[in-house]
Amino acid sequence: MSSKTTGSITIISEIYNFQTKGEIDIIDLSYPILEFVKKSNISNGKITVFSIGSTGSIVATEFEHGLIRDQKNIIKLLIPEGAGYNHDRIDNNAHSHLRSTLFGSEMSIPIIDHELMLGTWQQVVFLELDVHPRNRRVVFQIMGIVD
Amino acid sequence: MSSKTTGSITIISEIYNFQTKGEIDIIDLSYPILEFVKKSNISNGKITVFSIGSTGSIVATEFEHGLIRDQKNIIKLLIPEGAGYNHDRIDNNAHSHLRSTLFGSEMSIPIIDHELMLGTWQQVVFLELDVHPRNRRVVFQIMGIVD
Amino acid sequence: MSSKTTGSITIISEIYNFQTKGEIDIIDLSYPILEFVKKSNISNGKITVFSIGSTGSIVATEFEHGLIRDQKNIIKLLIPEGAGYNHDRIDNNAHSHLRSTLFGSEMSIPIIDHELMLGTWQQVVFLELDVHPRNRRVVFQIMGIVD
Repeated sequence: MSSKTTGSITIISEIYNFQTKGEIDIIDLSYPILEFVKKSNISNGKITVFSIGSTGSIVATEFEHGLIRDQKNIIKLLIPEGAGYNHDRIDNNAHSHLRSTLFGSEMSIPIIDHELMLGTWQQVVFLELDVHPRNRRVVFQIMGIVD
Repeated sequence: MSSKTTGSITIISEIYNFQTKGEIDIIDLSYPILEFVKKSNISNGKITVFSIGSTGSIVATEFEHGLIRDQKNIIKLLIPEGAGYNHDRIDNNAHSHLRSTLFGSEMSIPIIDHELMLGTWQQVVFLELDVHPRNRRVVFQIMGIVD
Repeated sequence: MSSKTTGSITIISEIYNFQTKGEIDIIDLSYPILEFVKKSNISNGKITVFSIGSTGSIVATEFEHGLIRDQKNIIKLLIPEGAGYNHDRIDNNAHSHLRSTLFGSEMSIPIIDHELMLGTWQQVVFLELDVHPRNRRVVFQIMGIVD
């Protein structure tokens, strides 16, 4: 599979809003991302998924029930809550920030010949790392060529 | 070093296939990436390197023999194998998934005036985190301007 | 908030130079990034921030004094210095490389209707992970449409 195209660029951006259930909630964004890609008519290019804010993350994982529980546990093990953090003197979510920095704010996924190049067991998810339920805003931005 | 160009966009995508030797194999992709950039004739833009699947990662490191062994060891220390993971009840690679999510699926590298902006000791590598040798597919996608 | 535009692409690249104070220095790049975006006149597109070299990282965090100290501590806890690394036989910064690989080399931030989509408490920072002060080069690259 390979492709080469030249032309005008089309850029389509949208903010996807959703509600989380609190710490640590993991939300599968793959379906809204796929719908956004389909609706765009972009044949070749890429989509960037970017989390606005510093206590959430965008990562890829297989969205399997047991694995999602494992993800939650490993996040807690890697960066424990309330370990004498300085930021907790003025707030209560130092560990949320530290976890978000470690896991990252965004990812980009290529589109080739109208196909989003995710693997079958590779879902794009939002990690709610903050300590309470929140209304979240994630940018979906496609840059590419409409054929 | 700075540049500004305006024009039609060219998007070139290819799937790079290779065989890994099993857990944990670290493969230097810098040479095929450089060849792809050269062949593209893109003067300014960027290349995105994206790993299809949820048990591999794309990261940057100096590709030095001792350091590569250190990378393998630290991956095992950060996320140990078989630590009672739920996903291991239906499969045997929970730790592979957890490691892939932590290290990430993709990276983008700018191209300026035909030069890929990697440092001298900064190589782009694929981390095989799954438990057996696999045939891997990594997307190389360049978006930019041909001068 | 959503937008769709089609046209010629403009790509503007620059290398941002700065001096770090040594291990572990955390430098807020948000202001120079914002200035670069403003000056570009790009209305829609994205900026990629890429660190040249394998002992630094680009991440997002709230740039709060206490949290920055927490970030420094957690980096040291996740990957300790001098833990018998092979790379330390030929150099003294194995832990710098391992930390840089874990935290990543780059990130991209969308621009919509002339607005850089960072949250209020979401700053883009450079992590100096090497063992001595260095002169650093970070690529700012914008790809988008000028309206």
